[in-house]
Amino acid sequence: MTGTTTTPFSAADHKARMERAARAAADAGLAGLLVAPGPDMVWLTGYTPTAVTERLTLLVLAPGQDPVLVVPTLEAPDAEHSVAGEALTLRDWTDGKDPYAVTGELLDGRGRYGISDNTWGMHVLGLQRTLPDSSYAALTDALPMLRAVKDAAEVELLAAAGAAADAAFEEIRKVTFAGRRESDLGRDLAALLRRFGHSQVDFTIVGSGPNGANPHHEVGDRVIQRGDMVVLDFGGLKDGYGSDTTRTVHVGEPTEEERRVHDIVREAQEAGYQAVRPGVACQEVDRAARKVITDAGYGEYFIHRTGHGIGVTTHEPPYMIEGEELPLVPGMCFSVEPGIYLPGRFGVRIEDIVTVTEDGGRRLNNTGREMVTVD
Amino acid sequence: MTGTTTTPFSAADHKARMERAARAAADAGLAGLLVAPGPDMVWLTGYTPTAVTERLTLLVLAPGQDPVLVVPTLEAPDAEHSVAGEALTLRDWTDGKDPYAVTGELLDGRGRYGISDNTWGMHVLGLQRTLPDSSYAALTDALPMLRAVKDAAEVELLAAAGAAADAAFEEIRKVTFAGRRESDLGRDLAALLRRFGHSQVDFTIVGSGPNGANPHHEVGDRVIQRGDMVVLDFGGLKDGYGSDTTRTVHVGEPTEEERRVHDIVREAQEAGYQAVRPGVACQEVDRAARKVITDAGYGEYFIHRTGHGIGVTTHEPPYMIEGEELPLVPGMCFSVEPGIYLPGRFGVRIEDIVTVTEDGGRRLNNTGREMVTVD
Repeated sequence: MTGTTTTPFSAADHKARMERAARAAADAGLAGLLVAPGPDMVWLTGYTPTAVTERLTLLVLAPGQDPVLVVPTLEAPDAEHSVAGEALTLRDWTDGKDPYAVTGELLDGRGRYGISDNTWGMHVLGLQRTLPDSSYAALTDALPMLRAVKDAAEVELLAAAGAAADAAFEEIRKVTFAGRRESDLGRDLAALLRRFGHSQVDFTIVGSGPNGANPHHEVGDRVIQRGDMVVLDFGGLKDGYGSDTTRTVHVGEPTEEERRVHDIVREAQEAGYQAVRPGVACQEVDRAARKVITDAGYGEYFIHRTGHGIGVTTHEPPYMIEGEELPLVPGMCFSVEPGIYLPGRFGVRIEDIVTVTEDGGRRLNNTGREMVTVD
Repeated sequence: MTGTTTTPFSAADHKARMERAARAAADAGLAGLLVAPGPDMVWLTGYTPTAVTERLTLLVLAPGQDPVLVVPTLEAPDAEHSVAGEALTLRDWTDGKDPYAVTGELLDGRGRYGISDNTWGMHVLGLQRTLPDSSYAALTDALPMLRAVKDAAEVELLAAAGAAADAAFEEIRKVTFAGRRESDLGRDLAALLRRFGHSQVDFTIVGSGPNGANPHHEVGDRVIQRGDMVVLDFGGLKDGYGSDTTRTVHVGEPTEEERRVHDIVREAQEAGYQAVRPGVACQEVDRAARKVITDAGYGEYFIHRTGHGIGVTTHEPPYMIEGEELPLVPGMCFSVEPGIYLPGRFGVRIEDIVTVTEDGGRRLNNTGREMVTVD
């Protein structure tokens, strides 16, 4: 029960991913990959320690070598009994030993390694100190595509998570909004995500009225009123893969301006979606969505990038942002989520997860994008 | 409600801590401190972003400069409205900008900085790339004492968390153990911690019979049986400060060996506690506890350090471990938790949080340490 995550994949699947990752590292001119607990480790090994502490746990992948997990002795039994236990070799270290020296023995002292983004800085500094001629690159810089291209099984897990989020939206639109707090609706959304199979709820944004104009507002004590626009952005993990969807609803009948802003965002979202096809640069998805909003005169109110990847996390590469020239590849999965935020007044955002197919894109969310009115 | 943590301290308190930290940095020969979201940031500023993502949020502290929080533009309103908003200046950066360049403008390009342990490695590498002549030390290496010495208000918050954990133990000993799963007891413990005021439960270890011999086992599906020893180790945060306590109970009457092992651990815990006084090196607390166990012939079965600090986290410096020569200072708070683990059979651990006073130690847990039998 402890120190493991329920990975829907087998030890053989994880072995294949580790081999693929080691080959990708070699192709990128790296001596190997170093991976700390977190999404990269889950994806590669299926293993998650009970807690991430200052004690070093690090996966060492190098071409032509068996994968090794450096792990605190105390946590070795948990690792041993996880899927990772079948797929790799453990090298444990005891309290009081120097874990960087233990790791250093597995590394090429002059090598350049990709290291997972979220590895604690103290561990990067510890490795640099132990092997002063080694060097490191953040995994996202070195191998941005490592987890970005999903296989068919992963896409279907993401589609199932998306369908669960759609089901949650279909339920939430039936409840009463007016007179309740944002935090009440947030709890409703979390309960619905769990009811439809999510094991983890990562966020339930309920941005009503002026709160909707802060894209990172989550939920507050504000009582929702008739006449409010309400941004609902929610997601989490189902069977290890993420959902993330946004719809903006209106409590009662919207004004003409509210309708117009919603229409613009809907058109922008559609344009972003339509831009998705293999070979197109990520930034083109951003540009396509942004153009619609800019042309309508609201460019300065679209204050974030258009999308982010999704997989074993709800937030990962690739990013749909100006300057990202990475070409889309079939199997990539990411959000398309333009928005308009009118400070002190209201916000509108519409978000679907989209996967790149051989000849275009496929939405993994399928509720309507027209504005819904609620009570 | 979002992007902030409820700190029990005022903006003035946080300002004073930041000034103290900047002075400590200067005394340690550092150009300043860089602090990512996490316990160091909570302690210094009272601020926690809604989520820790790849977007850089970093507190820059330097002697003689006003503290600056580098923050993604999207999250700036949350930071502005937190206690931190009163205590420091924000420098926001927009998606697509280079956050390391923004941060670099605030730094001395040839300076050495302490950087919080849990800062993502990608950010350390980003700063090294942007300012190649700068250098970095993990905060725990550079300033291990930064949060280690608690003031009177902090000690009382820890004492209140400890009292809540004691209350949870007094309730859990009344429930039926035999025939229930470890995971059921774990849920009971979590509910009790919340009932007695915890806002966050970090761990509820229920190690019954042979599972108790794995110190990092949390809870499993094992059905607890009459005759089991059961290690109960639980804690979390109450009003922002941590609890962490362990008692080992027995289901029905223990054997003579079980009693003897429990007595040895109790005596070791007492010896560790009695060793606590200002000026004594941390390792002496470990040695005092370990000596009792070693002298009794169980040395090889005490497979971890004797203790760890506690504060805004349940796991932080100082560490009571062989080799740690840091002297104890009044206000330090840490666990004293020796154990004996007999593989395949059972484990015993007893843990109290202890704070260093002017002339000794004071326990922040006060339930009895004699073995309790449960049903």
